[in-house]
Amino acid sequence: MSILVVGSVAFDTIETPSGKAERCVGGAATHFALAASYFTDVRVIAVVGEDFTAEHEAVLTRRGIDTRGIEHTKGKSFFWSGSYLKNLNEAQTLNTELNVFQSFSPKIPAEYEDSEYLFLANIDPVLQADVRAKMPRVKLVCGDTMNYWINDHAENLARMLKGLDGLLINDTEAKLLAHEGNMVLAAEKILAMGPKSLVVKHGEYGASAFFSERSFPGNHGRAIRMFRAPALPLAEVVDPTGAGDSFAGGFFGYIASQKELTPAVFKKAMFYGGVMGSFAVERFGIERLQQLDPGEIEERFALFCELSHLE
Amino acid sequence: MSILVVGSVAFDTIETPSGKAERCVGGAATHFALAASYFTDVRVIAVVGEDFTAEHEAVLTRRGIDTRGIEHTKGKSFFWSGSYLKNLNEAQTLNTELNVFQSFSPKIPAEYEDSEYLFLANIDPVLQADVRAKMPRVKLVCGDTMNYWINDHAENLARMLKGLDGLLINDTEAKLLAHEGNMVLAAEKILAMGPKSLVVKHGEYGASAFFSERSFPGNHGRAIRMFRAPALPLAEVVDPTGAGDSFAGGFFGYIASQKELTPAVFKKAMFYGGVMGSFAVERFGIERLQQLDPGEIEERFALFCELSHLE
Repeated sequence: MSILVVGSVAFDTIETPSGKAERCVGGAATHFALAASYFTDVRVIAVVGEDFTAEHEAVLTRRGIDTRGIEHTKGKSFFWSGSYLKNLNEAQTLNTELNVFQSFSPKIPAEYEDSEYLFLANIDPVLQADVRAKMPRVKLVCGDTMNYWINDHAENLARMLKGLDGLLINDTEAKLLAHEGNMVLAAEKILAMGPKSLVVKHGEYGASAFFSERSFPGNHGRAIRMFRAPALPLAEVVDPTGAGDSFAGGFFGYIASQKELTPAVFKKAMFYGGVMGSFAVERFGIERLQQLDPGEIEERFALFCELSHLE
Repeated sequence: MSILVVGSVAFDTIETPSGKAERCVGGAATHFALAASYFTDVRVIAVVGEDFTAEHEAVLTRRGIDTRGIEHTKGKSFFWSGSYLKNLNEAQTLNTELNVFQSFSPKIPAEYEDSEYLFLANIDPVLQADVRAKMPRVKLVCGDTMNYWINDHAENLARMLKGLDGLLINDTEAKLLAHEGNMVLAAEKILAMGPKSLVVKHGEYGASAFFSERSFPGNHGRAIRMFRAPALPLAEVVDPTGAGDSFAGGFFGYIASQKELTPAVFKKAMFYGGVMGSFAVERFGIERLQQLDPGEIEERFALFCELSHLE
């Protein structure tokens, strides 16, 4: 089944203890799409500037990703530069240039209208809600957000959250969104805001899911259940950029590849999320996500099981 | 099989967002012994003062714990008071009075000499090494330590580490001990210091184990393997005091209850550690650890499996 993702396609300059990468193709939609492309068909809606060439776009098309929804416009592409020299777990933003992203108005090509899965990567919740409204027939919608929208665009974000089946955010964001320091209570509050399931990413500690019967089509029970997926301890994290988006791509890509969303599929999707996140951080930018083969992915999935299962 | 534990038996005054408890029976050996007592016979070596009455000791003996190794001496018992009002994940020590613990010199009663399992709870590594040397025939020795000994008693600690089969510490301690911020590299360094296996406790994120073939009797391979056990997300952590010691008690107690230490037993022990830690924090001090029944423990063990296993 096809996933439609809307979000940023950008250039990133990244500095980590392992080195530096200049102007590599990045952005949340890029990481998400590449990770998801190993599981299902992916279509992208984004905007880029004149500096984004056919060669840059080939990063996506080489993986079979449909880029007809990437709008090319006058000006420069979204640019971000960050440093992890002080803290590998949190980027210090050195520079953000929104450029063509500043006036981004997502348009959905007619060829994308039959997409069954929709992922709203981290952008202005007004745009996320707009795309959501334009795709009323999708089977499942997941999305992401960040501190900036939680703090300064709470009302818009609240409207967007009502349209979500699943929300994927990190610890800090979840606690901030719920105004609650305890994760279980925070999850209860967030699930009351709209999303039918919540995935909280803990970086090197893996991820937790909070869901209920109503997370699965045709069911309505609201008693909250939990699931924890591990992360792979790595001797070197070369570049954490995009780990969360790659997690989301693996998670949602696996779900879209399955006939229906069941608790068993949801749990396996958490593992595939961790698997794709673990690959992403092994090289700078999207390098590792471009060159995987299905065998490697299955091998690492087996490693995640070995890491966490008693037998 | 019997576990001998040496460590502190003390009085704790604890303040958390959930309330306050005054002078409850605490100490690392107390939490460890109570948690382990649900799995196997436990014997305690410690020292207490005149303020430690038969009623206080009954906290242990009611659980069938052998307290003949608890020395009663002139003076006051070890007293600690701490607050978690600012941070539930890290106690702020308000007061520490070593009292009779200052001149503690562990003596091993003749009845304890056939103990097959030895746990060196967090005390001066000189005393830990001394007890270890006096018990040359034990099958398995595990131990704990803390920042204070790592920072200011490094040489003594290094000697103690050489005598350990397993070391159980938390994230911060592991990184400090190895002078290494990456957990995988830190684990490699620590395993080269002596311990045949390392368990790193991550609080609300569970625990990781680093081990190799030589962690299991009769094997010698050194290739490092990893395992991750979850923690149970709780809507209220009443009092985190002793969670790590309770983890150690569940972990080592389960191992001592089994015929031999195999990778399968080691992994299940990680889960039982998490189970006992999760009970410990539900009430102040040792309250919860005194009143469990085996059915509750097995039920929570099943919950840990459901939380982390795909099927």
